[in-house]
Amino acid sequence: MTSFKKLLFVVCITGAFAAVIADPPTCPASDLGSKCSDGWEGEFFPGIPKITYEGPSSKNPLAFKWYNPEEEILGKKMKDWMRFSVAFWHTFRGTGGDPFGAATKNWPWEDGTNSVAMAKRRMRANFEFINKLGVNRWCFHDRDIAPDGTTLEEANKNLDEVVELAKELQKGTDIKPLWGTAQLFMHPRYMHGGATSPELGVYVYAAAQVKKAMEVTHYLGGENYVFWGGREGYQSLLNTDMGRELDHMAKFLEAAANYKKKIGFNGVLLIEPKPQEPTKHQYDWDVATTASFLRKYGLIDEFKINVECNHATLSGHSCHHELETARLNGLLGNIDANTGDPQIGWDTDQFLTDIHEATMVMLSVVRNDGLAPGGFNFDAKLRRESTDVEDLFIAHITGMDTLARGLRNVAKLIEDGSLEALVKKRYASFDSDLGAQIEAGKADFETLEKKAMEWGEPKVPSAKQELAEMIFQSAL
Amino acid sequence: MTSFKKLLFVVCITGAFAAVIADPPTCPASDLGSKCSDGWEGEFFPGIPKITYEGPSSKNPLAFKWYNPEEEILGKKMKDWMRFSVAFWHTFRGTGGDPFGAATKNWPWEDGTNSVAMAKRRMRANFEFINKLGVNRWCFHDRDIAPDGTTLEEANKNLDEVVELAKELQKGTDIKPLWGTAQLFMHPRYMHGGATSPELGVYVYAAAQVKKAMEVTHYLGGENYVFWGGREGYQSLLNTDMGRELDHMAKFLEAAANYKKKIGFNGVLLIEPKPQEPTKHQYDWDVATTASFLRKYGLIDEFKINVECNHATLSGHSCHHELETARLNGLLGNIDANTGDPQIGWDTDQFLTDIHEATMVMLSVVRNDGLAPGGFNFDAKLRRESTDVEDLFIAHITGMDTLARGLRNVAKLIEDGSLEALVKKRYASFDSDLGAQIEAGKADFETLEKKAMEWGEPKVPSAKQELAEMIFQSAL
Amino acid sequence: MTSFKKLLFVVCITGAFAAVIADPPTCPASDLGSKCSDGWEGEFFPGIPKITYEGPSSKNPLAFKWYNPEEEILGKKMKDWMRFSVAFWHTFRGTGGDPFGAATKNWPWEDGTNSVAMAKRRMRANFEFINKLGVNRWCFHDRDIAPDGTTLEEANKNLDEVVELAKELQKGTDIKPLWGTAQLFMHPRYMHGGATSPELGVYVYAAAQVKKAMEVTHYLGGENYVFWGGREGYQSLLNTDMGRELDHMAKFLEAAANYKKKIGFNGVLLIEPKPQEPTKHQYDWDVATTASFLRKYGLIDEFKINVECNHATLSGHSCHHELETARLNGLLGNIDANTGDPQIGWDTDQFLTDIHEATMVMLSVVRNDGLAPGGFNFDAKLRRESTDVEDLFIAHITGMDTLARGLRNVAKLIEDGSLEALVKKRYASFDSDLGAQIEAGKADFETLEKKAMEWGEPKVPSAKQELAEMIFQSAL
Amino acid sequence: MTSFKKLLFVVCITGAFAAVIADPPTCPASDLGSKCSDGWEGEFFPGIPKITYEGPSSKNPLAFKWYNPEEEILGKKMKDWMRFSVAFWHTFRGTGGDPFGAATKNWPWEDGTNSVAMAKRRMRANFEFINKLGVNRWCFHDRDIAPDGTTLEEANKNLDEVVELAKELQKGTDIKPLWGTAQLFMHPRYMHGGATSPELGVYVYAAAQVKKAMEVTHYLGGENYVFWGGREGYQSLLNTDMGRELDHMAKFLEAAANYKKKIGFNGVLLIEPKPQEPTKHQYDWDVATTASFLRKYGLIDEFKINVECNHATLSGHSCHHELETARLNGLLGNIDANTGDPQIGWDTDQFLTDIHEATMVMLSVVRNDGLAPGGFNFDAKLRRESTDVEDLFIAHITGMDTLARGLRNVAKLIEDGSLEALVKKRYASFDSDLGAQIEAGKADFETLEKKAMEWGEPKVPSAKQELAEMIFQSAL
Repeated sequence: MTSFKKLLFVVCITGAFAAVIADPPTCPASDLGSKCSDGWEGEFFPGIPKITYEGPSSKNPLAFKWYNPEEEILGKKMKDWMRFSVAFWHTFRGTGGDPFGAATKNWPWEDGTNSVAMAKRRMRANFEFINKLGVNRWCFHDRDIAPDGTTLEEANKNLDEVVELAKELQKGTDIKPLWGTAQLFMHPRYMHGGATSPELGVYVYAAAQVKKAMEVTHYLGGENYVFWGGREGYQSLLNTDMGRELDHMAKFLEAAANYKKKIGFNGVLLIEPKPQEPTKHQYDWDVATTASFLRKYGLIDEFKINVECNHATLSGHSCHHELETARLNGLLGNIDANTGDPQIGWDTDQFLTDIHEATMVMLSVVRNDGLAPGGFNFDAKLRRESTDVEDLFIAHITGMDTLARGLRNVAKLIEDGSLEALVKKRYASFDSDLGAQIEAGKADFETLEKKAMEWGEPKVPSAKQELAEMIFQSAL
Repeated sequence: MTSFKKLLFVVCITGAFAAVIADPPTCPASDLGSKCSDGWEGEFFPGIPKITYEGPSSKNPLAFKWYNPEEEILGKKMKDWMRFSVAFWHTFRGTGGDPFGAATKNWPWEDGTNSVAMAKRRMRANFEFINKLGVNRWCFHDRDIAPDGTTLEEANKNLDEVVELAKELQKGTDIKPLWGTAQLFMHPRYMHGGATSPELGVYVYAAAQVKKAMEVTHYLGGENYVFWGGREGYQSLLNTDMGRELDHMAKFLEAAANYKKKIGFNGVLLIEPKPQEPTKHQYDWDVATTASFLRKYGLIDEFKINVECNHATLSGHSCHHELETARLNGLLGNIDANTGDPQIGWDTDQFLTDIHEATMVMLSVVRNDGLAPGGFNFDAKLRRESTDVEDLFIAHITGMDTLARGLRNVAKLIEDGSLEALVKKRYASFDSDLGAQIEAGKADFETLEKKAMEWGEPKVPSAKQELAEMIFQSAL
Repeated sequence: MTSFKKLLFVVCITGAFAAVIADPPTCPASDLGSKCSDGWEGEFFPGIPKITYEGPSSKNPLAFKWYNPEEEILGKKMKDWMRFSVAFWHTFRGTGGDPFGAATKNWPWEDGTNSVAMAKRRMRANFEFINKLGVNRWCFHDRDIAPDGTTLEEANKNLDEVVELAKELQKGTDIKPLWGTAQLFMHPRYMHGGATSPELGVYVYAAAQVKKAMEVTHYLGGENYVFWGGREGYQSLLNTDMGRELDHMAKFLEAAANYKKKIGFNGVLLIEPKPQEPTKHQYDWDVATTASFLRKYGLIDEFKINVECNHATLSGHSCHHELETARLNGLLGNIDANTGDPQIGWDTDQFLTDIHEATMVMLSVVRNDGLAPGGFNFDAKLRRESTDVEDLFIAHITGMDTLARGLRNVAKLIEDGSLEALVKKRYASFDSDLGAQIEAGKADFETLEKKAMEWGEPKVPSAKQELAEMIFQSAL
Repeated sequence: MTSFKKLLFVVCITGAFAAVIADPPTCPASDLGSKCSDGWEGEFFPGIPKITYEGPSSKNPLAFKWYNPEEEILGKKMKDWMRFSVAFWHTFRGTGGDPFGAATKNWPWEDGTNSVAMAKRRMRANFEFINKLGVNRWCFHDRDIAPDGTTLEEANKNLDEVVELAKELQKGTDIKPLWGTAQLFMHPRYMHGGATSPELGVYVYAAAQVKKAMEVTHYLGGENYVFWGGREGYQSLLNTDMGRELDHMAKFLEAAANYKKKIGFNGVLLIEPKPQEPTKHQYDWDVATTASFLRKYGLIDEFKINVECNHATLSGHSCHHELETARLNGLLGNIDANTGDPQIGWDTDQFLTDIHEATMVMLSVVRNDGLAPGGFNFDAKLRRESTDVEDLFIAHITGMDTLARGLRNVAKLIEDGSLEALVKKRYASFDSDLGAQIEAGKADFETLEKKAMEWGEPKVPSAKQELAEMIFQSAL
């Protein structure tokens, strides 16, 4: 019997799997000779095959046990429910550095520079990765995929060069960005915020950067564009004019929405809430806060929300709660598929491995009839101590399998029907004339008081929560 | 020199202070004979004088050191800034019970019953208490001040009888309710919620109860009416139709707003957010969530918000943040003045004693030009282990002094002007032509990009947070 | 196909299941006539059969899907791994009351009194419950099973009477207490603590109560005795002499250990850590704090620890962490099997339904070679809104099935062997001469420095956390 | 009237203060010529005077308002109570980088290299800083003050060179290290821990590094040596052998204690607890956990504890609680003076500005009769957005003033005596014969039960917490 243990040795020690090699990676057409112009020859992930579905009994760490892309479940192919995306930043720019420690990753293709050539080599690695993983979407920040410049013009030029390569690599495939975004938090100029910086020059710079990022997302066929305001918030209310900052943020987003239309970009604009970190308070705290902001400033029809599970739990909500809140407000646009640690107070961006949680997440997705044109972006990273190239694959495979398993569980729940029936039964008393009158806003307090006097003490049945939990668990 | 120690012995052991006795409590005019009809004769708080201002050097626990009601500060009398209110439930119905322990309070006036006579005796104690404390407002739940009944009719009758007494006790004074509210969380019928109960009969009953509570608040001259939805939320999303429940809540509040107008009640309707407890998730999670709800359902002009500091911190925000969020949304209506413990995850409803926090709170109140017709309600309770009658006074005095000290600190900050100047300076670059254009929504991305190219790298000055903190502390 | 939905209707509406009725409940031998002397005739749980194992495919809410008591797993019968116990307080004295709401449970056998007769009726219900559930252990507080008295003598007499009945009901069965304990937190006399009360009289009273509770636990064949110091802690350090209180607690526990030996009680004395609630800080904060206390006061050999999962998470640890900490200190004595909500800051005492968590818990139990003479006590309660008698069964069944499923998963993990091998491999470099020298305390800094110079930069492999998580999940 | 605002402009714009210039900084004696060999000429902090005490009414941001080093309070000079120390890492190596952003600090003396020359220049800046600030202690990690090397030998050589300069700069002053420590968390080799790494080679390397760091601390006259185990913990229990890791840690610390004696270093060895971050769980979780570990492994007499306030609150305790726990265990050795944000779940290392907290901290310090040979180390950093050189001074001044204000408040509390009397009175019943018997461990349960029967229901007075809070606040 093949065990994990044995396979572990295969992977770590002999690096075999020679039989199931993926398509050889090619230099882009513009390159000549046996070595690409970025200086890297051959595969980036030698020994890693194209990941395929082997079913739940497989002990192969480099195979799917639950995710079977073409299999139909609840009326859609699994791949169409999931629309998985690889996050360029974590997978290709994550260094393992943390506030107490230096970089730990030494990916073989990295040459230690932040050059355009290195950026292009990394982009080729990205395409090999997503190809071997069997997904067809990726997400990026402008400054992740191409080096910054000493001027905005230079930064834009660098970006264009790398985007051109990505465009070429996408050609003939169905790969495209799930979304792009501008990184408005890493550079010191953004230390007080981008759209909410007290410095006019920073606001202006941020606008120019978003303009460009939106253009290249559009150029690459991206389906969405995301705003995560890592520095849009405050560290202290003592030195902050919160009202003015919020007004600025609204004007910024309004200008973005206008520009989107101007260039004919039909992608969805998404806001990604996070309660705090790096700031003490971020203006897009959670789904409800974001919805309130959008409504106040008349932007509710221009934006949807990208719910990140780890951000949800940091804000004191379950991920499921945030998904449902977004869904009920018509704002559920995309999911950043990750998870946090329930005992940890900062963003750990772990790959989701919990099947309860995955099942809850997929319940919302199914109720939303999927996420398209959004999808699941793996905003998740290897632990700092995970330093093998294969760890990148193992992590993504588990993340994909976990959500796939969640989908299969939801299908079981729906087929069984007991849970839905239990919920429907709880509210049945409102499926009545008076219930309809109330729901139509036609029952005034005098009418209701009369009814209350007439009916006397209402009967209140058990909530059957434990039964609901039993039914739920039985689908796992 | 008089020390606390000595006074402590006076208070605890000899119970003196005879010289400064407050006005003798009288039975209401309707009563005859030497003993009131509720069976209690003489003072409820013998030995406790009318609390007066003695200044910061006083060591008398039964005197104000910072709160001087008639003193003018920043253009208003202190009492008009504060508009303090005693919460009937904590002060007169708090038993010291908790999930792990029985009642600990044995107030001398309690006879162990929940009779109407006992309710009336308690109401008289309330008026003596607020009179001695020198406030002129009180807050109540319907079921705190009068016993429930086996039918709604009986409950209403009980309520009317006690309200009549309160009306009489108010006569000739400037005392009135800061606000009233209906208790929709204690009775088992409300275990799944009131307005959001899945049971139609409960919704109906809740409407009738709110109708009556609003009527008596109006009758007593109440200036506001509060909704705290202790059970309006969920324990588990598995057995909950959150969308339907939120719709019901909106219809309920709409009906309440309509009824208010119908009866000519001009008080403000206030929603009091709390994130959780007793439920896992309460629909009025925080100020932003409540604002989002009000905006979604078209209720934003009908309601304001009652911010409770301990609820703020339970939701992951500072109290000051919630106050500012309410203020910036035009929703700051009232403050439930209490505090939590930063290491504790449930509502402890402690009296505020922290002068930093009090100063932050008063900063928002002053920016809001006060809270009227709202005020500060002491939604705070003695610790379970504090069982002396005098503890009730000591707690309120400290609570009042702490906020008064906060107000005095704010006055110092404003007079000094440095903090305000520091903030203004941070945003000065927006006080320019382009700044004005942006704030007017007239700066599109193309314009801004041109400027960014023209200006090059922006200069970003220090946020001066430590200086702001130094200035702030120097006012304490 | 039988679905939950259908069964739900059976249970809720027709109350059938007539075919699988458990043994008829009998009055104790001392009773005569058709009606027991406690005034209750017939079954307490009519329509509820003896719960049996039907396997994972069963859709019967009143059957075990994973817990098969006599099945052997990893060398022991399931029932011997689990040693399940019903907590009398939650199951028979839980009222559904919470800080914001009154009692919601109306169990048919309750007559509204706190009489000795009612206590005896409840005890009979307890035995029917544990019999139908198929467990053979129960846990109790002295004041749960019998009413308090106006004097200690009277309280003891009441307790003796109910204990006598329990003894009789145990006769001829293998049922006995997993443990007993004294309730030193509910009565107002304990508001400042029992062993740590500043009042000598309370310390004395608490000692007398523990003495008696230990005696009756011994008399009933109890296998352990538990100390949960709900009020042993502080609300504020300002009015607390923590050093003196800790000294008192140590003397109290020392006296308890001495008394245990004196009466020949061979049960294990267990301390149950909890970080806070009801107090701001409880002295038995977590396992490590308790171990430190026991070591400081020379009590480490006299006590073990009862780990409660919800208390673990409230203290910022995973339950698994606390179990492992107890195990590695030789202190793992018992588990209070429940769970909390990761977003909630107070003790929710929910039944565990999470199979990840259950698998982690069982990993520790298996490494500990079981818990005997301890076991799993269901210190868990129905949600306040769950008010059907059948909910009591459903909750316990899910709790038992979840842990049973955890045990089955652990068996899979152990049989596969990959996870264990992965861990062993990580530490393999210490299985060397120098490793052995270090572990024996024989490698001084000079020796080690020489080696460091000689070896140069060490190689540090990947931690393989994602692979470990993949292997773990594959066993679920 | 001079206001903060005006001074702000002086500081920021004209950089005046020319009149109060501190002693001119000199190159070390070994340097020749007008420019030091490290390439920096003149002052590092031009325009910043020697900070002096101006009293509470001063509005000068560059003066002490509360800290008056030579003033005697409660029998000691303020400087002897405080023993302030500057943390080299935050003040001179803090870059403003965080997980989402690049460095923001551009100190004029930095040349962008990590050379030995730069290290020496920085060390000179350090001495000018502490001289101008008027403190005489500093703390350092080995790798902060000198660049690492490609070999351990090279790293040691770099360290020696910089240490030699520090030694020279200390000459003729009373400046010395409060403590030194080894940085075992930044380098990737330590990603799995130092003493607890599963890799033998890392354990060995860590030992060599600590050996050297202890030697140089001793050489510089350091009074303590600290262990902060930033990576001594786990990320996941799934891939961790916690028992073996804890054993290794104990052996490591034992070897360190032995080596200390061997080299005649009389400094105190301190362990600094932190619950988590960067790891999921750190073995030195809090004071109690650390004490338990030290006792288990027989190390309790060899180590004391360095309590960091922000670490305390991250572990769910107030800082005061951790200080008292350390004090009562005889382990209070040093305080890392900082603070966190009560709503934030990671280490923010802010300068303490809260006078309540500072007063609580100083209560413990006074009860401990000071901290010597430990002191207060400012393990605190500027906010990322604070980028002016003067911010470094402003932050330290507020931190020092806040603790000084705390000390003054404690003096007021002690002189008043009410709080102490209140506490003493609470425990007075134990100042009796039976109390003494209990405290001597001579009161068995039979004796106590007899007393309980004899005494009947104990009287339990109010805890007077609100009065204690009132007294406490009145000292602020």
